[in-house]
Order: sequence, then structure tokens, then C-alpha cells
Amino acid sequence: MTAPNRNTLWAETLVKELVAGGVEGVCVAPGSRSTPLTVAAAGHPDLTVYSHLDERSAAYFALGRARRTGEPTPLICTSGTAAANFYPAVIEANQARVPMILLTADRPPELRDSGANQTIDQEKLYGNAVRWYRDLPEPEPTGRKLRRLRTDAARAVAESVGHPSGPVHLNVPFRKPLEPVEVSGDVPDDLAEKAPLGVDGREGPFVRTSGGRIEPDDATVADLVETIEAADRGLFVAGPADPPVPDVDRGALAEFADLTGFPILADPLSGLRFGEHVTDTPVLGGYDAYLDERVTGDWPAPEIVLRIGASPTSKPLRKYLARTGARQYVVDPAGGWREAEFTVTDLLEADPTALVEAVVDRLEGEDGTATDGWRSRWLDAEAAYWDRIGTARDDARNGERFEGAVVAAAVEGAPDPATIFVSNSMPVRDLDRFARPATAELTVLGNRGASGIDGIVSTALGAGSATDEPLVAITGDLAFYHDMNGLLALGRCGVDATVVLINNDGGGIFHMLPIESFDPPFTDQFKTPHGLDFAPTAELYELSFTSVDRLDEFADVYGASLDSDGTQVIEFRIGSQESHDRRAALQESICEWLGT
Amino acid sequence: MTAPNRNTLWAETLVKELVAGGVEGVCVAPGSRSTPLTVAAAGHPDLTVYSHLDERSAAYFALGRARRTGEPTPLICTSGTAAANFYPAVIEANQARVPMILLTADRPPELRDSGANQTIDQEKLYGNAVRWYRDLPEPEPTGRKLRRLRTDAARAVAESVGHPSGPVHLNVPFRKPLEPVEVSGDVPDDLAEKAPLGVDGREGPFVRTSGGRIEPDDATVADLVETIEAADRGLFVAGPADPPVPDVDRGALAEFADLTGFPILADPLSGLRFGEHVTDTPVLGGYDAYLDERVTGDWPAPEIVLRIGASPTSKPLRKYLARTGARQYVVDPAGGWREAEFTVTDLLEADPTALVEAVVDRLEGEDGTATDGWRSRWLDAEAAYWDRIGTARDDARNGERFEGAVVAAAVEGAPDPATIFVSNSMPVRDLDRFARPATAELTVLGNRGASGIDGIVSTALGAGSATDEPLVAITGDLAFYHDMNGLLALGRCGVDATVVLINNDGGGIFHMLPIESFDPPFTDQFKTPHGLDFAPTAELYELSFTSVDRLDEFADVYGASLDSDGTQVIEFRIGSQESHDRRAALQESICEWLGT
Repeated sequence: MTAPNRNTLWAETLVKELVAGGVEGVCVAPGSRSTPLTVAAAGHPDLTVYSHLDERSAAYFALGRARRTGEPTPLICTSGTAAANFYPAVIEANQARVPMILLTADRPPELRDSGANQTIDQEKLYGNAVRWYRDLPEPEPTGRKLRRLRTDAARAVAESVGHPSGPVHLNVPFRKPLEPVEVSGDVPDDLAEKAPLGVDGREGPFVRTSGGRIEPDDATVADLVETIEAADRGLFVAGPADPPVPDVDRGALAEFADLTGFPILADPLSGLRFGEHVTDTPVLGGYDAYLDERVTGDWPAPEIVLRIGASPTSKPLRKYLARTGARQYVVDPAGGWREAEFTVTDLLEADPTALVEAVVDRLEGEDGTATDGWRSRWLDAEAAYWDRIGTARDDARNGERFEGAVVAAAVEGAPDPATIFVSNSMPVRDLDRFARPATAELTVLGNRGASGIDGIVSTALGAGSATDEPLVAITGDLAFYHDMNGLLALGRCGVDATVVLINNDGGGIFHMLPIESFDPPFTDQFKTPHGLDFAPTAELYELSFTSVDRLDEFADVYGASLDSDGTQVIEFRIGSQESHDRRAALQESICEWLGT
Repeated sequence: MTAPNRNTLWAETLVKELVAGGVEGVCVAPGSRSTPLTVAAAGHPDLTVYSHLDERSAAYFALGRARRTGEPTPLICTSGTAAANFYPAVIEANQARVPMILLTADRPPELRDSGANQTIDQEKLYGNAVRWYRDLPEPEPTGRKLRRLRTDAARAVAESVGHPSGPVHLNVPFRKPLEPVEVSGDVPDDLAEKAPLGVDGREGPFVRTSGGRIEPDDATVADLVETIEAADRGLFVAGPADPPVPDVDRGALAEFADLTGFPILADPLSGLRFGEHVTDTPVLGGYDAYLDERVTGDWPAPEIVLRIGASPTSKPLRKYLARTGARQYVVDPAGGWREAEFTVTDLLEADPTALVEAVVDRLEGEDGTATDGWRSRWLDAEAAYWDRIGTARDDARNGERFEGAVVAAAVEGAPDPATIFVSNSMPVRDLDRFARPATAELTVLGNRGASGIDGIVSTALGAGSATDEPLVAITGDLAFYHDMNGLLALGRCGVDATVVLINNDGGGIFHMLPIESFDPPFTDQFKTPHGLDFAPTAELYELSFTSVDRLDEFADVYGASLDSDGTQVIEFRIGSQESHDRRAALQESICEWLGT
């Protein structure tokens, strides 16, 4: 019983319980009101503190860690707008089901709504974007309050990793003194004696929690198996995974694919496009290109589609699924309705692995339903596509420039294993279309919940901080600029990365939209060239910066970066018009080549 | 009647009405869903478009413009986390009563909560932080809907500048096509004929709005005047002003001071500390130092205090007001309860100028209530204080280094007129304590609503964009880092500035708090030295960067900057411990000198 005052006791109790609940790191932004929390976190021997100066970047960093690990990295900030800077990442965490625990220090109740300095309305600050919100009571050294606090800490962790996982907000008021100064009599000497449970907690977490696994019921499985057996043509579609990736056990999926003959269409963020299972599972990754009416227009439609994860990155795939008329199952462990084409027929609230295992159990020993013609049609298209793309990429290596080739080269050249974080806008689309399924154990992550281009650098570095694997971040210039502040974490949080910065000087993606034909305002308001020379980031953030404009150069510099310590930003400068034209021409040639 | 489709018609109508309501500029961040709004804004001949790439900076830029002008600069962004990046500035605008209009594009209703890409829950995205929220209906080319839209636009402007002014949020859903492409039949050919009012609006705004001025009632004034007449000692305290500054007419205030003998304690952000009125009005600015028990402990207490504006920046002043026991009036045109010491006796909902004029009207012709001894006691203390500080600053010029002297030099050396934007944390406190009232027409602004250190660069540049006056921004290193992205507006939005960057490598303010004695974690988690060398911002943002570490050097470089075009960042490097010690020693010497 050593706490010098009630705030210290309170914050230490909260932090201890979080650690007991499995928390290994916290992200802290400096501030005064949060002093008790920060001191408790910094003083805990089993906790790593990641110190950030920009709360927006801090929150994305925490998001990245949680996305890589599946476990929350709590955030601590002071009162006021600091907490509001967490908001974009909170929304991403909500949409993408990433565990997050927000600990926002607050003024005590008597100062709220009084005009007091740095006092804002923090009640329900994140609205509906959090799974659980609680305004903690004022620190008080009593048994019941401390037990409740311990329970709240356990609950915060459990709710953040629940079904679905996501952000949790605890608002934590403190009145002065905020520092661990001795306040005589503030914590009664006999508190530990009178309230041992509140003061000492338990061996391990105060409340052990287990989330369980949502099993499908027998009737549902029987019905699904019947449908599968009756069908000649089925697909398994894995969208972006909820963390940690993948959503479904690879072994079970391989058996499923074997028994059903379903091709596996694996989103680049599904956790299934890359890995050893690719050798014996029909994982497809080129569908974004060949699911074009000109190629697949005369293919027979699938009769059944099983989909897991979030809505696929590939728009051609989404449109294809919408027009097939198949019986379309969405399997979601949290019962989410993540289907924006409104053609789904069945929503199965079940753990994908549990469901696949149950189906495999029933199918085993029966005649396989696989129809070879259907599967080989897909495998053939897939092979032909990558063959064709390989030629195009050889052209690119010979001097033709093309963003997709850079992304593909970054993925192919990545170490095995590696963690790859890919930005929204064009990079994730290029990765989807141009990165071939491979056996390397690549954990490919992105912020596909709200698909913003904010927080990309920090999310990537956060993911990198959670693994010993090499980290590759692939980003465009707007996303890089948007979260340049995030680069401070390289040094402060000890993360090394290879950053592939595809710099097309603005919003290249707008070339893909009809607004391109309206200039003005296209260039000034959409393409928004900024002319930024990012080379000075080298000096600002003590990283190495190299600019290249040829693919062979890129390969050399990229390889060298992966072999070296520290952080290297490799900028590939390319005109967005040039890349867009090349992408369009390539799609034309793919359709000509593969079309009938 | 030329709109090619309903979205174009809708967005053009909205933008036209905003302009008719007095809007002169908008801040736009690029995005797809917001295309109709962006195209309409860019196409309007009377509207200046400020293009930003980081929505957080965009919102602070808009805040800065509105703070300088008192008029809103609407913000346009796409759907998703883009809108969440506005949140910190929205909260500041709410707290500081700064007009703001948020136009967030959204997906159409059928795509919400469906897992569709870049679709988040934008309904009431900013919670209670906005004055007014509306989810606009889907664009539809009918008379009533267009009239409602025009009404909403007028209302958005009116609510944003209402009592109190603040942020307003219009969520604006669109479905494709978003571009101004011709959609045959989408807008009926005879719409203008059938619904002329909706289509053409009116000459000028669709709804003319006038906010009026809140006049105090006679009984209140009579009672107040009676109290004033009965009192020998009174004070007038002007806290941070609601935009545009100042809250009270200078002429009326001069008469009031003359008739009552009340000294005017003018917060640096009150709009009253600087200006020609200082010649004939007893404006005091040194109270933050000399309202120390050791100096004023034996002064007689004021019997009456009249306070306008937000809670004063000076903590010694707030504490002094709390302990005087005076009858304390807070005058607030919006009836706000902005007093966190809970010693106020009267809240007068009235326009400060109206109140002061009414009091002056009644006092005129009667015997003045001024008690010379009371006023001269304050004036003497004030004169002695600045005399003493002058000596200290001479020391500083002779090589002793001290942050307060830099801030004071920046204010004294500023052109007349000039706009000065001062960061939170130490700069505003130093300005409060060390910048002497002067006759130069300096508009001194800060973000004192929530007192965050976020968005400082952008708010400053936004304020600068709204005036032809030279712009001086005074900031610490943490605030500078936090919103480095905001520097992009220099080139993109055509703002020039002189940025005084006081770099003490981290959170110097924490030296003033008891946490200083606890190291660790003081250095790592509170002081948080970052070691950033900001010189590369010169190359990144095409500005000039000079680092100095002596006050005489500073004066030279500062003077040269004010005489030149473009933007100059003048970094003054100083140890925060050194500055803190000097500040503390100075306060000791002030108290010794002025104390009895």
C-alpha cells in the first residue's frame, strides 16, 4: 500500500488491470490532466510506452499495432481537443473492427461546462463509433469503487476484442494533485486491510473473460451443405479480414476447397492471398482484372457464393457477385450486414472457421461436389492473366513506367515473412490487381474500414512495432503527406521500415473518375498537384530517402533497403496520367487476350 | 436553367445561397463524393477556394479566417474519416464561438450502414459540438426541396454567426453521377417555369437574417449603476473576445473608465490590450505578474467587477477575482456561464457594448464615482511593473536568454497594424505577462476555446488569409510540429507570414508543474524532447528558415522578415529549464520590487 494519493492509486489500479488483461503496450501523448495515467503506465514494469506528440498519429499507431496483433494498445491523452484528434482512427477502428481502448483524461465534474480552461464536453465524445463508453467516477479509495474500476478495466479489454472487436472509450476525470505527491490521509492507511480485493486485486485479471467462438447451428449447416451438394458451381470469397488475419483457418479452407471445388477469391487484405497454403489451395488473386464482362460475360454463373470478411476491395468482384444471381451467403461472426449490393440471400452469424469446419465434416466421406470444369475455368483464367501481366511487367522493367508494376515488385521482392501495409486509394487497388498469390508469408494490412488516406504512415509503423518481421509500407504521396507527422514514431518508437512512396504529385485516382473531363476544376480541386519535394523528410526524421523513376532502379534500391537497418523511403516518381493510361491499356489488352 | 443533373443543380443552389448570405471563401479538401459541392464552389465567380490536402489543417484554416473576420468560411470534404479530421477544429470553434459551416458529403441513404466503401455514420458526427445539424435530403429538382435548401443555406450562415456563434453541420448526401455530366430528363426542362422561386432564388439572400443586439433591460442597468455609484473600487475585466474582436466598443469603454475610475484589465486576446484607445483608456496588461499575494495582498479589495469575454488567460487574475469577494458581473451576449471559480454573483445576458453604453448614459451628468486612489494604485503598479520588466529585457538583450523577452520583442516589433496569432501553452502566457499595452493596432488572436496546441499553424495562416495586414505567428516547437502540414497553405493559399518559433525541444510548460520533480517519467513522458531540426521545412514548404539564439539577433532577423515578402520562420532555440528558471526568478524580483 504505497500510493501517495487517490489519483495515483486509481491510475495504478487501472493500468495494472489492463496489463493483467493482456495489454502489453500503451500509446501516450504528453499532457497535464492525464498525469496519473501516464505516470502509472510509465512506471509499470511490463508495459511498453510508445510516446507520441500528435494524438492523431498516436491513435493510428495504436490501430496499426492492434491490427497486427488482434490485441488493443490503449491510448492515453489529456483533456480537450487532444482527444478529438483520436476521432479519425476511432472511426476506422469501429468500421474495421480493430480493438482500441481510449483513456481520455478529463477535468473533474465540477469544472465541466464552466468555461474552465482546456475543458470540453468529452461525454460520448466519439458518439456511436465506440462499442462501449463509460465516464469513470471520480477516484475514491474505497473497496467498491476500486473493484468496479478493476471490473471496468477487464471489461474494456473484453469489449474491445468482442464480437465484433472495436474501440472502447473510458473518460477518466481527475482533480489536482495530478502528480504522485504525498497527500496525507488521502488514501487511508488501513485501506488494504479493509478492502483487500479492491486494493490488491487478484492473481491475474480481476475478471477472467473469454469470448468464445460462434458456432453455426446444425440446421443451418445441413441446409448449406445441401445447397453446396446440389450446386455445380460455387465460389468462396474472402474479403478484408478482421484482425488478426486471416478470418478462417487455412487447413480447413484447403479441405473445403478440395471437397467443393470452389475457387478461393482472396482479397489482398484477407490474409489468404499469401502464405504456404497457396501451394495446395486454389487461391485466386487476378479476378479484379478478369471479372470483366468482356472476359467472363459468357461464363456460367456460380450457383452459390460463400463470403467471409468485409466487402471486397475489388469493385469488379462486387459487381460480379451482384449480377450472378447466386445464392450468396455472408458469414460473419458478429452478424454484421456488410454487403452493399443488397443481393445477399443468407447471413450466417458464425465464426468462419467453425462454419467451414462444420461443412467439411459433413462433406467428408460423401462424394465430392467439385466440378472440375468450373474450377479449371477459373484456374486457367488466373494463370493466363498472370502470364499476361508478367509480360507487361517485363515491359515495365524495360523502361515503361507503371504504378502497378512498382506495387507488384514491392510485394514480390518482400522478405518471407514480412508485414506489408498498403495505403488506400490506388496502392491497395494496384496490389489487388497486380500482386499475384504467392507462398511467402506476407501479412498484408490496410485501413479498409473507412478507406481513408489519413493515418497511413502511423498505422503502418504501429503494425511494424508489433512484429519482428520486416515492415514494408506502400503509399501514395497524398497519404504520405497527410500523416508525415507519423514519421516521428520511427525514432521515438523504434520502428524500422521500408516505405515505398509512389509519388504522382496529387490525387492520381481522380483520373479514373469522370471528373477528369472537367478541367477546371479537375486539376486544381481534384488532382491537386502539390509539387512537394519529400526529400527533406530525410533530415527531419533521420531516414534515408532515395528517388527513382525506373523499375530496375527501384528493384535495386528496394533490395538494398530490405537488407539494411534503419528506415528507407524509396520514392518512385511517376505521372498519374501516364500510369492511368497504362492501366487502362493493360486492361484492354487483358480483355482482348482472355476474352472469347 | 443549365444544370446538367440534379446534383449539379443542388450543389450550385446551395453554394449560391451561401454566397448570397455573405460567404466569400470556402476551404475544400479533394474527394470524390463531394464533387458536386467542389465543382459548384470552384465555378462560382465570387468565391475564393482555399484548397487543402489535410482536412484537419483545412478546418483550422477556416477557423482562423472566421476568427479574424467574424464570418464563416465553409468547409467541404468527402465522406468518411475526412470529416472526422475536422473534429478538433469544430470543438475549438464551439468553445471559442467561432462561426464555421461544415459541408460533409455523404453516401446516399441506401448505402449507409451497409459495409459500402468509405461509408461511415456521419449523422451527428460532431455530437453536441455544433449549434445546428441537418442531414440534407437527397437532391431532388422540385420547388419545395430547392426552397428548403435555400432556406437551409441562409439558416446555416445565420446560426453560425448567432448568439453565440459557432459551428454548423450540414451533411450532404449524393448518389452518382457526381460530376456535371448531362443526365437527360434528370432536371425537368420546365422546372424554372414551374418552380421559379426554387430555381432562381431571390435577388440577394433567399432569407435575409439579422441577429440583433441583446440590450440589457432598464432595471438591470439601474441596479448595476447603483452598485457602481455605491462602490469606491471597481474593475473592468476583458477576457478573450468572441470573434471578431473586440467585444466592446472602445469609445464607450473609454467613457466608462473615465466615469467610473475602473481600471481595464485587458487579456491579450481581448482585442483591447493594443490600439489607439490605449492612449486615453487605463488599459492594464501586467496584472498576471503583480496580482501576486506578495504585491497586492494588502490592497483593498474591489467591491465590483464587470467582466466580459471568456475566462481570462491569466490564472493569477482568475484566482484574484475569486478571492476578492466583490460583486462580480459576467456580461455575456449569449448568456454563457463562463466562470469556473464559481464566485460570480450576476450574469447579465447583454451585448457588452450595449451594456456599457447604457451605464455610461446613466452615469453621465452625475458625479463621477471614480476614486483616484484606487485607479492610481493600479496604474502605479502597472508602470512600475513594466519599468522593471524593461530592465529585465535589457538584460536579455545583453545576452541573457528568456522566452518572454522573445515574445515581447515580437509584439513590440510588429508593424502597425498587424495580426498576431499566438499559440497556447507558454506563448500566450508569456504574451499575457510580458507584452505591454500599446497603441499599435495589433489584432492578437489565439485558440483559447479549448486551448489546444493543435492546428496552430493553420489557424494563424487562416487568420492571415483574411487580412492584408502582416501576419506574425508565435508558436512553440510542439505546436509547430503538431500542425506542420498546415505550412502547405503558405503556397497553396497564398499567405505570407513571419513565424516566431520558440524551440525549447519539447513541453517546456511541464517545468511549471509539480511533475518536474518526478523524473522518470518527467523527461520521457512530459518534457518529451524530440530533437527535431525544423530547418528542412524550408525546402519542404518553400519558406525561409533562420535559427537564432540571442535576442539582438532575433530583433535583426525579425525586422528583416517583416520588411520582406514570403514566409520566414525564425527559430529561437532555448532551453526550457533556462527559461523557466528565469521566469521564476523574474517573478521573485518583481514581487520584491513591487511588494510592500
